[in-house]
Parts: sequence; C-alpha cells; structure tokens
Amino acid sequence: MQDVFRYIDENQNNYLEQLFVFLRQPSISTQNLGVKECADLLMNILKDSGAEAEIFQTPQHPIVIGHIRNKAASRTLLVYGHYDVQPPEPLDLWETPPFDPTIRNGRIYGRGVADNKGQLFSHIKAAEAIIRVRGKTSSNITFLFEGEEEMGSPNLGPFIQDHKDLLKADACLVSDGSRHSSGRPTIFCGLKGILYLEITAKGANRDLHSMHAAMIPSPVWKLVHGLASLKAENGTVLIPGFYDRVRKPTETELQVIHDIPNLAADVRQMLKVKTFLGGDDAYYYNMFFSPTCNIAGIEAGYTGLGAKTVLPCKAFAKIDFRLVPDQNPDEIYGQIKHYFETQGLVDIEIIKHSELMPSRTPIDHPYVQLIKTAINYATGEEPIIFPSMGGSGPDYLFTGVLGLPSVWLPLSPHDSNNHAPNENIFIEDLFKGMKIGSTIIEWMGEKSNYMTKKRGDVKKLKNSKDELKRENK
Amino acid sequence: MQDVFRYIDENQNNYLEQLFVFLRQPSISTQNLGVKECADLLMNILKDSGAEAEIFQTPQHPIVIGHIRNKAASRTLLVYGHYDVQPPEPLDLWETPPFDPTIRNGRIYGRGVADNKGQLFSHIKAAEAIIRVRGKTSSNITFLFEGEEEMGSPNLGPFIQDHKDLLKADACLVSDGSRHSSGRPTIFCGLKGILYLEITAKGANRDLHSMHAAMIPSPVWKLVHGLASLKAENGTVLIPGFYDRVRKPTETELQVIHDIPNLAADVRQMLKVKTFLGGDDAYYYNMFFSPTCNIAGIEAGYTGLGAKTVLPCKAFAKIDFRLVPDQNPDEIYGQIKHYFETQGLVDIEIIKHSELMPSRTPIDHPYVQLIKTAINYATGEEPIIFPSMGGSGPDYLFTGVLGLPSVWLPLSPHDSNNHAPNENIFIEDLFKGMKIGSTIIEWMGEKSNYMTKKRGDVKKLKNSKDELKRENK
Repeated sequence: MQDVFRYIDENQNNYLEQLFVFLRQPSISTQNLGVKECADLLMNILKDSGAEAEIFQTPQHPIVIGHIRNKAASRTLLVYGHYDVQPPEPLDLWETPPFDPTIRNGRIYGRGVADNKGQLFSHIKAAEAIIRVRGKTSSNITFLFEGEEEMGSPNLGPFIQDHKDLLKADACLVSDGSRHSSGRPTIFCGLKGILYLEITAKGANRDLHSMHAAMIPSPVWKLVHGLASLKAENGTVLIPGFYDRVRKPTETELQVIHDIPNLAADVRQMLKVKTFLGGDDAYYYNMFFSPTCNIAGIEAGYTGLGAKTVLPCKAFAKIDFRLVPDQNPDEIYGQIKHYFETQGLVDIEIIKHSELMPSRTPIDHPYVQLIKTAINYATGEEPIIFPSMGGSGPDYLFTGVLGLPSVWLPLSPHDSNNHAPNENIFIEDLFKGMKIGSTIIEWMGEKSNYMTKKRGDVKKLKNSKDELKRENK
Repeated sequence: MQDVFRYIDENQNNYLEQLFVFLRQPSISTQNLGVKECADLLMNILKDSGAEAEIFQTPQHPIVIGHIRNKAASRTLLVYGHYDVQPPEPLDLWETPPFDPTIRNGRIYGRGVADNKGQLFSHIKAAEAIIRVRGKTSSNITFLFEGEEEMGSPNLGPFIQDHKDLLKADACLVSDGSRHSSGRPTIFCGLKGILYLEITAKGANRDLHSMHAAMIPSPVWKLVHGLASLKAENGTVLIPGFYDRVRKPTETELQVIHDIPNLAADVRQMLKVKTFLGGDDAYYYNMFFSPTCNIAGIEAGYTGLGAKTVLPCKAFAKIDFRLVPDQNPDEIYGQIKHYFETQGLVDIEIIKHSELMPSRTPIDHPYVQLIKTAINYATGEEPIIFPSMGGSGPDYLFTGVLGLPSVWLPLSPHDSNNHAPNENIFIEDLFKGMKIGSTIIEWMGEKSNYMTKKRGDVKKLKNSKDELKRENK
C-alpha cells in the first residue's frame, strides 16, 4: 500500500482545500439551513473523486449515495456517514467562526470537521487515492451519507429497508464518534440500542395552593413512586423481563476488557465522582454490556428562587434506556406499560419518543481482524478493540437489516468537542484515516495480501453474514 | 350597637374615598416599591381614626403600630394585618389597572383590596366609628400591621419577641384569607405550620452524555429514591417520629365538621380530581388535622422538546410540610436529616428554607364564642367554624409567643383572586366587617352585654390564656 500512502502524503494541501470548501457549507439539519446545498456539494465531491453519485430525496433531507465499482471485484464495502451538523450555538464560545475552518496547533477547528464531514471525507479520498494510483479499487465501495443524523435519522431506516439491493455489501465501515482517551485508535464492534420515553402524571386541572395536598393526590408523588418502582437503589432495573434477553458477553469479549488501558480512576478524578457503579473494575464491563435506565429530565411545580407552596397539576420525566443485544426496545416499552398497569399506575401516561435496536458484531469476526490489522499496517499503532460503544446509533440497520459485520472506527480525538463549540480534529488523523481506509478497501478484495494469505477467514466472513443477521434479529 | 352601625352606614362614601387613597399607594414588599410611603400613609390613617400610631423600623420594611387606649378598659384586642401587597403581574390580565381601584358589580377591584389593605382598614374604621359615636371604646385596641407578609414575615417574629409588653393583649383578631365557598362567614381557629425544604443531590461535576449512566451513579435516581422513602404510595409519611406529636382532634372539633356544608364533591368536579385522599368524607378532616408532605417543585436535566440524552449532574426538589399541633418544624427537620443518614443518603443536601409553627385555639374557647355571636349579631348570618385553616401563617406568634386566643375571620369571598389579577372584595363585606369589628371591640370590654351576662366565660377567657400558651408551646 506504500504507493497509495505516498500519493496521500503528496496531496495533503489539495485535500485540505477540498475539505475546507465542504466545511464552509453549513448543513444544520434541525434548522434546515444549507442542507440541500451541502448534499449537492457532497455529490460533486464524490463525482470528482471517481464515484458515481446520486441524491435520494426523503421526506426531509436528502441521502447521498456514491458507488465506486470494479466489475472484477467480488466484495463491497459499505461506508456510512452523515453530512449534516449540529447547530453552532453558543457562538461566543467559538475561538474562530464555526463555518470558517481554521488550523491551530495541528488541529482543524470548525463545525462538522469531526462530526462527521472530516471523517467521511477521509474515506472518499482513500478510495480516490487508490483509483489515482492503481486505476481501480480491489473491492466495490458504496457510500451512504445521510443529512438527518443530528435529528435522530428519522428516514434512514425506511430508506435502507427500501434499498437493500442498492446497498448490498459484505461489510460496513463507519467513522464517527471519538477514540479512546488514551489516544490509541479504537474499533467499536457494536452500539447500544435506546428506548426514549416521556412519562407524565396528571393531577387536578390547575396548580393549587399546597394546602390542598392534604386532600388531593399529587401527580409529583405519583411520578416519583412510579419512577422509584422502575429501579432499585442498587441500580437493578425492576421491570419484569427487562434482563431476559440480555446476551451474555463471550469469553473473547470479556478478555478484551483486560487489553484496554483502564482509565476509570482518571475519569473519576476528572469528573469528581466518588465511586463508579460496581467499582473501577466494572467500568468497561458496564460500558459495553450493561443496559441502563436513566432519568434524562424531570420537572414539576416551582423550581425558581424562594419558597412557592404549590401542589403541581402535572409532573413529567424523560427516561432513556440504553439497551444491549438482544433486548428489544418495543418489547421493553410493552413491559413497562404492563408493569405500571399491574401496579395500578394507570394514570401515568407513557409515550415512546424514539428507539434504536442494539447491535453487535463479534470481536473475533474476521472483518474485525482485518480492520485491526489494517490500522496497524497503515499507522504502526495498535488499536484498542471495544466490544461495544456505550452510546447508541443506527448500527442495527447495517447488522440486523442488511446483515453485515459492522465496525465503527472514529478518527476524532476524545476531545474533539463534538456538538460543542470549537469542534476539531487532528489534520494528521485525517491522512491516517485515508491510509487506513485505502488499506481496508484493498484488503477487502480477494487479491489482497491479507485475504489470500488467510483463505479460511474469507470463507468465515461470508458464512458469518447469515449468522450475524440471525444474531441481531 | 345600632348607634355605631348607623354611623357606619351613613359614612360609606367617606370610607371608600379613604380606602381608595390607601389602595392607590403601591406597597410591593418583594420589589421594595412604595412600601415606606404606604407605611407613612397607614400611620396617618390610624392617627386620623383616633389612634396613637408609630412606625418601627425593621431590617427591611417598617411595622406600623397603632393604639387606641381607654384607661378604664381592662381588656385589649390585638388586631394583626399587613399593608404590603403581591406584585400585580401579569398586568395584561387585569380588567382595570391594579393600583386604580374600580367598582364593578358590587365589588372593588384592585391589588391589595382583599389581601390585606381592605380587611385591616375595616377594623381601623370599626374602632373609629365607636369613638365618633360613643367617645371611647370599651376595650383597648392594638393594631399590628407589618409590611413583609408577602415575603414570609421575616422580621415579625423577632419584633414580637422584642415587644411583648407593647403587644400585651387578651385576644388576637386577624382578617386575612378567604371565606368558605358557600359564602357564609367563616371563623378559623388555627393555622397549620410549615417546614419548607430544598433537597439537592449531586453527581459528577458536569452534565454527561447518558451513556455514562451505565458507570456513574445518577443524582436524579438518588433524589427520586430519597423522596420515595419519605412517603408511602398510600400517602403515609415514613419519616420515623413524624406523627408522634400530632394532636388528636377533640370531640368538639370533630363535631363541627358535620356542621360545615361539605362541598367536597363540587370541588372535585371543579378541579377534575377523581378521588380525594380518604374520600369526600375525609375532606375537612384532612384539611384541619392532617399534616402533609408535598413536593412543590422538582427539577433535573433536560425537560424541553425532543430527546436529549443526558446524565444530569444535579437534581433538586422543594418540599413543604404542612404541620399540625404539636408538631415542631425544627424537630421534623432533624428527623429527616437523621432518617436520610440512617439510609445512607449522606450525599443529599437538605436546606431548611423557612418554617412556621402550627397554632390552634380551641373552638370552645369563650373568645371564639364571642366572635361567633358577634358575627351573628352584626350581620344576621350564622358563621361556619373551622378548627384550622389548611394553610399556614404566623398565628403561633399570637398564640404561642404572646399566649393569646386568636381567630382568623376573613372578610373576602372565596373568589377574591388573592395573589392573582383582578383581586377584589365585596363593598358590602367591608361594611359588615366594620360592624363585626366594632361589636367585638365593645363586647370584649367588661361592660358589654355579652360579657356581663356570662361572667363565667370572662373568667375562663383569662384562665385559658395560660393554658393556650402551654398548648401551643
């Protein structure tokens, strides 16, 4: 791959120029600001890089699809990313304007440079470099770039369901999120699912003087008792059936925990947390394998300064459950409703706001091994393998719906300030990303060194596709 | 008393003119708007009405004291009221400007007309009418008017403690609050105490992405579990010792519940409440005799639109306990702190915001009987006797600190909109208030019909002063 790497190194200024044009185009999906213009720009970047490209309309923001095809290639890599960005506010906390990308101390600062324009750009340029140097890529590549990730990807699922043929592939690669705080490259082999609920308890038809609390049942107490019934003080979720489908980690998955530099004590110190749930040793186990039940918000009555004595007429809470395979958000939603009914909490309204299925690719899957070896080959660094992110994302669409092994390989540092002012990425990491990407693309092809040396693994890759689909269903 | 009543009837226009001047002067204590000017005005009203009057400075707003003395009189009536008012906002909901009193359909509309300027004005004019007609009053009268009631009376307690001699009296009369919704005159023989707490649970030193909920204990759950441990789902307060000092209602107090028109079903219908705690029959029992533990406010994390997934770093709640004799807010504060400690909830910070002792005057006290008979004599109406208000106020300062029997006798209708736009009072009720007030003042004197006819009661009134002091300590 040294020929391709040399080309990448020689074209650094060229890449930065193109990336900066991409970054200067706002594409704030929640504010419908510049998204269409950015989709057009991205389509042109794909075309200029040697891909066929096409825009698909959705009910809101367009999806951009790119194809790099080689009739001789037997495998296809699906690359997912998103070109929409978070709103830049609060503007006064930015050291340089969010849509005027600026280089300082080896990093590019600008909205979307890490989340996710810079990262997806690296993979486009990885493919382009191979084409420029070798004339063609050893595997086919399909780029799937959406413009609604920061809105919760409302139309990505339906699009994928409707375009399974278009998106047919052998594996999926996503560069989004951030690396382990040690700075080492990090491979995430899964994401947690999510169930986001809004729970409301109602009392009288108006707020009342709190003297009425002697006579009138309070919706705040109803909510507090309802919430307390969801989770024991020791953290155990009390919803009957909640843990039934939790998949036990494999021996291999448990083993990798020991290979990860355990920074739990540092994190505790930084966040001023006395103890982690289960202690420092349980830090990574919980991050990868434990589902959560978190109160993201709660509100009732008067919470300003001073003493207002009010019996509130309404209380509500937002709750997010992070789910692990093979928990199913829909099923858990049903369990909660049933549980509240059996407790007589019939007056509490539970609304499902959003959900995502959990997803996991086995860490001993040959595709994961390919990624791992490619990173080491391209950068000389030894990646850390995470069986799962602690967070959630649409990974199940790739593993469960499309049946692909999928890894998330962030190029951003842990302090890239995603969703915050002064978002940034190291310039160097963008070029490393191109080298990693090009290595993966070439090695995916049957003629690559990696694959020809390990025919058994190729077979396993193909077989495991069905297994994976089963596992994630 | 017909001579005095006639004088009152003949001077109605005169009274309204004077009252309107008083109402036009804003006196918003929380905004420090016009309070000093209003104190001066009130002092002059007292002087013009035949009282000696004096202003006492406090750390914030002045207390106005008035005395009407008759050397021959052996008893003194203490009349408490407050000349400060609530802020008038929201202004756009007022049909006529808050500080431009206006008459519509037999009611005066204006800020403070009910709470409490109009009501205290009635008692000043009651005394004045007696002086104008009879040259002197049969009992001495001490007017105690503060300018901080709407701020929670921070300086009233210390002032009373420091001026026991100045405030020496035989009974206390307060016209504040509102009548029973049947419209009948209502006598309240006590007020609940209050303990107002702010409870805060803290987690990490910043809000975090909710994926961290798998590793980091949440202060919101800590608060929810702490709150849930305070009260059972059936409404029973679980703090050990909480009910120990709750005084059992007397047979007489229980009896009066049956004499009160039970409007519980109407109230339920109006407020759209399915069931009252303990059912409709328990409505008045709970209002008078049951302490409460109410969550007045709770807040944590994100409560806006949409799904924000955050592990909040802080959660807090405001709680008010309405207390009945002989519960002591300080003691209960200690019980809660101890209870949380025994449960290991040491991270939860509990701050006492404010407190008031509960207070009650026995409904068979001869002073209560005097008030009841005076109302009936002056208005022809049969008053309802409430053993207690459901709300709280500084009554313990009169019963517990000064050792007086005390009744609260509101002149305002139940829909007087206290603390709200379009505050109002019936004109007719102000004049009725003057007649009731003058009757009480004259009957308090030993030479009155009421007292001379019932010497036994007079003795009891004197003796019971010590008993009352004991009961409320």
